[in-house]
Amino acid sequence: MSQLLYEGKAKKMFTTDDPNVLRVEYKNDATAFNGQKKASFEGKGRLNNAICTKIFKMLQQKNVPTHYIETISETEQLVKAVSIVPIEVVVRNVVAGSLSKRLGVDEGVTLARTIVEFYYKSDELGDPMINTDHALAMEIATKDELAEIRRLALDVNDALQAFFSEAGILLVDFKLEFGKLKATGEIVLADEISPDSCRLWDKETHEKLDKDVFRRNIADLPETYEKLLKRLEDVK
Amino acid sequence: MSQLLYEGKAKKMFTTDDPNVLRVEYKNDATAFNGQKKASFEGKGRLNNAICTKIFKMLQQKNVPTHYIETISETEQLVKAVSIVPIEVVVRNVVAGSLSKRLGVDEGVTLARTIVEFYYKSDELGDPMINTDHALAMEIATKDELAEIRRLALDVNDALQAFFSEAGILLVDFKLEFGKLKATGEIVLADEISPDSCRLWDKETHEKLDKDVFRRNIADLPETYEKLLKRLEDVK
Ligand SMILES: Nc1ncnc2c1ncn2[C@@H]1O[C@H](COP(=O)(O)OP(=O)(O)O)[C@@H](O)[C@H]1O
Ligand SMILES: Nc1ncnc2c1ncn2[C@@H]1O[C@H](COP(=O)(O)OP(=O)(O)O)[C@@H](O)[C@H]1O
Ligand SMILES: [Mg+2]
Ligand SMILES: [Mg+2]
Repeated sequence: MSQLLYEGKAKKMFTTDDPNVLRVEYKNDATAFNGQKKASFEGKGRLNNAICTKIFKMLQQKNVPTHYIETISETEQLVKAVSIVPIEVVVRNVVAGSLSKRLGVDEGVTLARTIVEFYYKSDELGDPMINTDHALAMEIATKDELAEIRRLALDVNDALQAFFSEAGILLVDFKLEFGKLKATGEIVLADEISPDSCRLWDKETHEKLDKDVFRRNIADLPETYEKLLKRLEDVK
Repeated sequence: MSQLLYEGKAKKMFTTDDPNVLRVEYKNDATAFNGQKKASFEGKGRLNNAICTKIFKMLQQKNVPTHYIETISETEQLVKAVSIVPIEVVVRNVVAGSLSKRLGVDEGVTLARTIVEFYYKSDELGDPMINTDHALAMEIATKDELAEIRRLALDVNDALQAFFSEAGILLVDFKLEFGKLKATGEIVLADEISPDSCRLWDKETHEKLDKDVFRRNIADLPETYEKLLKRLEDVK
């Protein structure tokens, strides 16, 4: 018996016969600006599932703990059920998007040091930026959990930078979510890593290979994601 | 020879014959919402100077390093010249103002843990909230300086809470600025601590004794500040 547990903006989460396992279905929907801009693109679910699968497999090989179990169809994965820590963790290597506005620094400037940001995952509040003290005072996570999340986020950054670099791609920034395994409380990487949640630029031309093509009406989304997948597949 | 070095929203800073010493003049101007709301109040400069003097003397007695030297007139202090770290440090014990909006928590809720926030001091950018990584990547301060600033901010909080408590006043939140002494680079508390930069509520009635009476048109500003000064003077 499989029940729809949650339908989000980009994915559906279903129960499976195993209470510790969920089925994720990647939808064709794209949203931006906290859901204000919406569209649907034939092939998006398939492309994100394929790209995310490649990335989760790569991370597993590098011993990063993730919720990923296996990919069971063109648009579906099985993942470990977790209780999501309601923090969107953003890792930034190059200035873009909201950071450019916040600090008054031009997009494209390489940061002297990687920046990790926490956003409180709350659609009603518009995902406000928070710091460690806010997370602790609100009891969103413990001090140890926050330290582990930061450590894992930086490990993921190292792994992703190397991975994309081989495909000639610059990892500008990305968003992660972490969860706690129901059984042990262990923190693992959850949700997705895809062009929906990363900024990826061609190293030479700075051509965008991510959801900014949709946010900013720059190019066709499925064509862009297809191009990205092709480049990742071409890496030996 | 004394020259106007800088005229800010609430104070003027003058040079003195000693390059390591500045003269601060407290103005009668009040501003709110990043300068959008403005007014001038007879007596405000005198009241803030008197209140701030009491607080800096109290902090000195508790061995908190500050820029304060002495009060030389009703509206003037001498202070050590520092190079200001461009971070507004906000310390919060009770939810109010922007934190209430950010986290969707009612004003007046006591925090489970004190929150320290950093805002990048930049009128053009609207003083955006930043975290430690932003400060380090932007080279606004070093890691050691940020740790020292946090430690001092929490020490100031302990001292201020005890001080105001004796006057029957709840210290809701406050803003600090720190600077580096020109000679040694030592971090000291600079700028001011006054009802302009604190939220202070009567413990029993929650009557506001700070600049929120001006921001929110609740009561007369000089009358409120006079009442606060009187209560601080009445403490033995
Ligand atoms: N392993 C997991 N276990 C439980 N929930 C998960 C897991 N991985 C991701 N989630 C959650 O499932 C939802 C995925 O759907 P998505 O369309 O991304 O939602 P949203 O609109 O909230 O971003 C998210 O709320 C995410 O936090
Ligand atoms: N000891 C000091 N040495 C040098 N500058 C200082 C010192 N103390 C405070 N300042 C700076 O002087 C200015 C004080 O004036 P103020 O009216 O508060 O300015 P603002 O409008 O920037 O808040 C602030 O910019 C503050 O950072
Ligand atoms: Mg999502
Ligand atoms: Mg000021």
